[in-house]
Amino acid sequence: MVKNQIPDIVVGRLPRYLQELLHMTQKDQKTTSSQELGERLGISSAQIRKDLSQFGEFGKQGTGYSISYLIEQLQVILKVDKVWDIALIGAGDLGHAIARYQGFKNRGFRVAMVFDNDPAKIGSSIGDFVVQDTANIGTLVEQANIKVAMLTVPVSAAQEVAEALVRAGVRAILNYAPTPLNLPEHVCVQYIDPIVALQHMTYYLG
Amino acid sequence: MVKNQIPDIVVGRLPRYLQELLHMTQKDQKTTSSQELGERLGISSAQIRKDLSQFGEFGKQGTGYSISYLIEQLQVILKVDKVWDIALIGAGDLGHAIARYQGFKNRGFRVAMVFDNDPAKIGSSIGDFVVQDTANIGTLVEQANIKVAMLTVPVSAAQEVAEALVRAGVRAILNYAPTPLNLPEHVCVQYIDPIVALQHMTYYLG
Repeated sequence: MVKNQIPDIVVGRLPRYLQELLHMTQKDQKTTSSQELGERLGISSAQIRKDLSQFGEFGKQGTGYSISYLIEQLQVILKVDKVWDIALIGAGDLGHAIARYQGFKNRGFRVAMVFDNDPAKIGSSIGDFVVQDTANIGTLVEQANIKVAMLTVPVSAAQEVAEALVRAGVRAILNYAPTPLNLPEHVCVQYIDPIVALQHMTYYLG
Repeated sequence: MVKNQIPDIVVGRLPRYLQELLHMTQKDQKTTSSQELGERLGISSAQIRKDLSQFGEFGKQGTGYSISYLIEQLQVILKVDKVWDIALIGAGDLGHAIARYQGFKNRGFRVAMVFDNDPAKIGSSIGDFVVQDTANIGTLVEQANIKVAMLTVPVSAAQEVAEALVRAGVRAILNYAPTPLNLPEHVCVQYIDPIVALQHMTYYLG
């Protein structure tokens, strides 16, 4: 399969291209160039052309890229030409922020269920959601055929909850708990840890 | 300077090594190997040895790494052998979550100030913080000599607030607003956007 030959680091840049292209359409821009995209994103234009060329021919020499066409193509490549339901586990401060986050719209995702194991939170409302008992992940997530989850639970609970999600059929987990998850190879895991990003920057500070 | 020769992608992996080493010490483990670290992090042991060798000799063939020594060295390299004060701009749901986040401890950072431009929020308390007026970033951040900021403001405010932070002396910004910032080259910017991470994973889903 061609897919396996594309380095993960290239795949990881595509969502950033897509995001910037969406910003451009919001400003009614119709075409762009690898130079312009590169300047906005801090990536070289050669890198952008090379990345995109791995997936096909999206632009013409001299005339650049049609933004709407490139958006459509990237959405298909990243499989966000549909909307993925998300199970959100952990209804603390961060879970609240995510459940109410408006930025999912038109980007391929929506939070569909919110879980917590705290009896004080189960049954309470966050925006449009009623918080479900984490103990019911197995049945609820599987019935709803949810494949994507976001984890905003404490470190101590992360592995156990992640395993329950995988048993229920989840194949992609975005983990906010600052701990690595040990899961079967067919499950994708990405981490969001502000400290990792902060430490990356302080390296460069005098 | 040697520093400039090390690829940014290598620098970006060091905080993940440091994080996993800290987890190991929490479990009273004293030594580790590139194999073990690699398995935990999903990175090849060869890559880890190569990354670390760019900064010095931290382990011995056959005996592996002393965890406490490697932690100390990584903390020095990443400049988190001190505590950096953070200015947090945006006291919405996400700002609340970050202001109350317990995970900063012992990792080189602490939130020192919280700002918002909403009159209803200015003067209110989040945990130990009184929310300050964004209009006072210039004086307050500069007086406190704060170099690191986290941005949890709406997209429409992000660029303007970031410029005010840079004028006040900030040199590293962790941006949660889903929009790229256009800042002078001496300023480091990292982005946290859950959708970028989610789209990276859906690429691999069938």
